[in-house]
Amino acid sequence: MSNQNMSVPALRRLPLYYRCVIALKEEGKKFISCTDIGSRLELVPIQVRKDLQAAGATGRPKVGYEVDELETVLKEMLGYGKPTDAFIVGMGNLGQALTAHKEFERCGLEIVAAFDTSPLKIGRDYFGKRVFPLNKLVNLAQRMNIKMGIITTPAKSAQDIADIMVEAGIKGIWNFTPVHLNVPDDVYVHNENFMSSLSVLINRIS
Amino acid sequence: MSNQNMSVPALRRLPLYYRCVIALKEEGKKFISCTDIGSRLELVPIQVRKDLQAAGATGRPKVGYEVDELETVLKEMLGYGKPTDAFIVGMGNLGQALTAHKEFERCGLEIVAAFDTSPLKIGRDYFGKRVFPLNKLVNLAQRMNIKMGIITTPAKSAQDIADIMVEAGIKGIWNFTPVHLNVPDDVYVHNENFMSSLSVLINRIS
Repeated sequence: MSNQNMSVPALRRLPLYYRCVIALKEEGKKFISCTDIGSRLELVPIQVRKDLQAAGATGRPKVGYEVDELETVLKEMLGYGKPTDAFIVGMGNLGQALTAHKEFERCGLEIVAAFDTSPLKIGRDYFGKRVFPLNKLVNLAQRMNIKMGIITTPAKSAQDIADIMVEAGIKGIWNFTPVHLNVPDDVYVHNENFMSSLSVLINRIS
Repeated sequence: MSNQNMSVPALRRLPLYYRCVIALKEEGKKFISCTDIGSRLELVPIQVRKDLQAAGATGRPKVGYEVDELETVLKEMLGYGKPTDAFIVGMGNLGQALTAHKEFERCGLEIVAAFDTSPLKIGRDYFGKRVFPLNKLVNLAQRMNIKMGIITTPAKSAQDIADIMVEAGIKGIWNFTPVHLNVPDDVYVHNENFMSSLSVLINRIS
């Protein structure tokens, strides 16, 4: 994926478009319109057109997008053909669940190694991934040229792990802890903050 | 939590403020300013002031916010004192990880029962929560007045589960599948779409 100018909301919608294209393809469609996609995803057609254009897909007036071509464009933009290698730190329940998540490998991410501080976990395999001691992370990341790290530790360790990842040259951190991480400007942190999601949900149903 | 007019981004920041207030309290602070909070969370002070005001907290000029008072206001807004009961459907690795997540109960959510279709899981307990067959969901939700549902099933079942939850009177759905769910207007869906997060991360590091 190369277009670094796409907005975060547009980038977040790309996997939804991809999934929609696959579904329409399975229904036997050869051409699809922004209206077809928009009606499934509850988005206005002009939004779909704008996002797909930013992704590099061009439709034809009155015909729409050729399904196979759109699939290829989205797949490339999403990096689904060439997975990014990542390390995960923290092999509690959530770390194990993410390591086991089958959909990641189809969707551009390959977790290649896990790290923990517990002697009960180090040296074990979880879903085919070996758990290494945390003090091996910097060396392994540099040797394997790892640019993505996932943090699923308890909150109190999160900043320390982020510091280690930064030292190791990791440029993208997927943070599953509720902690705000301080990192240099050239490192991108994506927060999967369950507590923040909860506060929206609880507010909306009360 | 009662203020339904707070924006989603502001609501998402409330747990970060809460965590920050707790940390400052543990450091022995009695009064804190928007600048104190902002510098920890990399937010401009005016943003902090605006959010806290929307949450119902009022600071005093030159003194700031009284820590205990701010803690109480945020805790109430976040519903941390009075957890919301929820059902979870899909007891694979992710469902189990969420059920085991200790932080939820402190943060306004109590998962009271789990559902699955697998005879291997039904009747078992996971982390103290009993797994029921899916066909009991509507009846149990109505009897227990459950308003929140969590979906951690495979993608292909997600819409069916959402339909069952809607039938059961559930008003807030926390969707961990990558599927766009179609629900009535009075049901709020919060998508925890890992694939969307991945597409942002992969884009930003490439």
